[in-house]
Amino acid sequence: MKLETIRWSGELDGHLVLIDQTLLPGETKELACRDVDTVFEAIRALRVRGAPAIGIAAAYGVCVGLQPFVHDRQHEFFDRAVEIVEYLATSRPTAVNLFWALARMQAKAQALQLARKSPSLALAALLAEARAIHEEDRLMCHAIGRYGAELLSNNSGVLTHCNAGGLATSEYGTALSVFFTAQDQGKQLHVFVDETRPLLQGARLTAWELAQRKIPATLICDSMAGQVMREGRVQAVVVGADRIAANGDTANKIGTYSVAVLAHAHGIPFYVAAPTNTFDLALASGDEIPIEERSAAEITHGFGKQTAPDGIHVYNPAFDVTPARYIQAIITERGVIAPVDRDTIAKLFAQQ
Amino acid sequence: MKLETIRWSGELDGHLVLIDQTLLPGETKELACRDVDTVFEAIRALRVRGAPAIGIAAAYGVCVGLQPFVHDRQHEFFDRAVEIVEYLATSRPTAVNLFWALARMQAKAQALQLARKSPSLALAALLAEARAIHEEDRLMCHAIGRYGAELLSNNSGVLTHCNAGGLATSEYGTALSVFFTAQDQGKQLHVFVDETRPLLQGARLTAWELAQRKIPATLICDSMAGQVMREGRVQAVVVGADRIAANGDTANKIGTYSVAVLAHAHGIPFYVAAPTNTFDLALASGDEIPIEERSAAEITHGFGKQTAPDGIHVYNPAFDVTPARYIQAIITERGVIAPVDRDTIAKLFAQQ
Repeated sequence: MKLETIRWSGELDGHLVLIDQTLLPGETKELACRDVDTVFEAIRALRVRGAPAIGIAAAYGVCVGLQPFVHDRQHEFFDRAVEIVEYLATSRPTAVNLFWALARMQAKAQALQLARKSPSLALAALLAEARAIHEEDRLMCHAIGRYGAELLSNNSGVLTHCNAGGLATSEYGTALSVFFTAQDQGKQLHVFVDETRPLLQGARLTAWELAQRKIPATLICDSMAGQVMREGRVQAVVVGADRIAANGDTANKIGTYSVAVLAHAHGIPFYVAAPTNTFDLALASGDEIPIEERSAAEITHGFGKQTAPDGIHVYNPAFDVTPARYIQAIITERGVIAPVDRDTIAKLFAQQ
Repeated sequence: MKLETIRWSGELDGHLVLIDQTLLPGETKELACRDVDTVFEAIRALRVRGAPAIGIAAAYGVCVGLQPFVHDRQHEFFDRAVEIVEYLATSRPTAVNLFWALARMQAKAQALQLARKSPSLALAALLAEARAIHEEDRLMCHAIGRYGAELLSNNSGVLTHCNAGGLATSEYGTALSVFFTAQDQGKQLHVFVDETRPLLQGARLTAWELAQRKIPATLICDSMAGQVMREGRVQAVVVGADRIAANGDTANKIGTYSVAVLAHAHGIPFYVAAPTNTFDLALASGDEIPIEERSAAEITHGFGKQTAPDGIHVYNPAFDVTPARYIQAIITERGVIAPVDRDTIAKLFAQQ
């Protein structure tokens, strides 16, 4: 089954369609995004989430946002393009793929403006660009899967945190692409899935994707990762990433850092799987990555029921940063970065 | 405010009253236990939980269970006592205080039988024994608090996992007694509270107790403990215990082991606070401690809503074992055990 996390329905006058991931696994329901505010809200509220998927959704969101202006004068159309890009860039702060995709759409718009394209031709070209981002992501995910699968042995236990699967990308995902590709190659894996509080992307999304593909999996609470490692049931950890600094420090879902420290303490290799557009080489280290803080209610009222006393102070960072020293390798679509340090990363990016 | 986690209402024909902790913090409701099945169910379903509190509840449960037999013949009454003790011992497997309290009640019953006491006199003596266990626990908690508070500096951040407070014991608790006593001494602390999945004893119970006593606290998801340590906001970790082996290996709520590894990685002292009746010197190491596995539904349907796909395999150990090497000290009512090893523990127990 191919997951249609994100799709464009129709042609130039079509619209963006997302699986509303906040309803999974109870309900598989699509959300039609016919205006840019709906796209913005979908990103902000995590109806679409995962660094690559946010980028793709935002790229299509630029097209949705420009549709009402296709009969405007040329300069007004391109002014709107700038505004829409700037607006969508404020939807979430941490995943760099969002800014990468929007910058690419903006660069395309600028080129079209310079070439004096009409709004309707420009919109067609921008939709083609969004489709290209989408398709490239699909191919990158498969390449990541092929590189990553080589790192996993047959009959091994692996652990992942959050969801870096098809729901976070196009089709195969990043971390989960490694598992899916290993399965395609005939390797037997058993996947331990951190439920990933507060929003349970592991329980709701990763467990669901693994079940769809019939990969043996065990759901655990985040606090049990250390225990399954100690029991010798985990031979590798693979996670995705939301932003990677020039030195390899990696921002990913809150809790990833703890998993990395635990893996290190148990001598288990810890891998990050991410396309190269997740790197932000402008940042020297992870200290510079902005970390989104989300609402207390995600923790205190997470399951539709109040589970903490009124007025309790809550700290709810959505991400944490894992220092490069805990990362055995970063698996990209261009190859595996190991050891994870500034030089090895720079070398990969120099090979254009 | 004195927490009346457990109380005996009335005299010899009275009954056990518990705060139903599964309803906290939404509802503070007492549960009257007028028969032994209600006591058994309350322990099994975690309406009363925490190693010391389970022991106290079980001791009173023996009295509740014997009330219907107070007019039976002597040998029948004492036969019932043995049956009730054996029955209550099957309510939960990990916390040794349960077996300790029941063994003490059984020894008392045997002595009374040897002394040819009538059932009504014996019941009165057994109720007095349960009350003594209860009161001794209260005093032990205060002593633990005094020893432990010396280990904490003024203006420090501390972290705890699960609930080892008044709700887990009598009045002050074990780990929380350390914080409460430090506060009584005028020390300023800020407590980071792991929510403690799956049953959220941290969010529901510890956060509630700290709020009652106006101790500044921040609720976090378990997966955030590493992050707050990395941010330098935690100077000590204090947790309770469900069973401690002769070498100091400590069983406590699942997730404690991960917290200990993380504390170790950040150079933060990790303390266990527990009365000496939590030790099981018959066990050479933590490998011998039986670990309760609880139902998958606690993880997949935790708060009245399904949050994982149907049929997903789940691993739900209620406890884990922290090796002694990660424990800076064990704080008991008789003093602080450090370093945590077989010899130091044996020495403390030799000082009767």
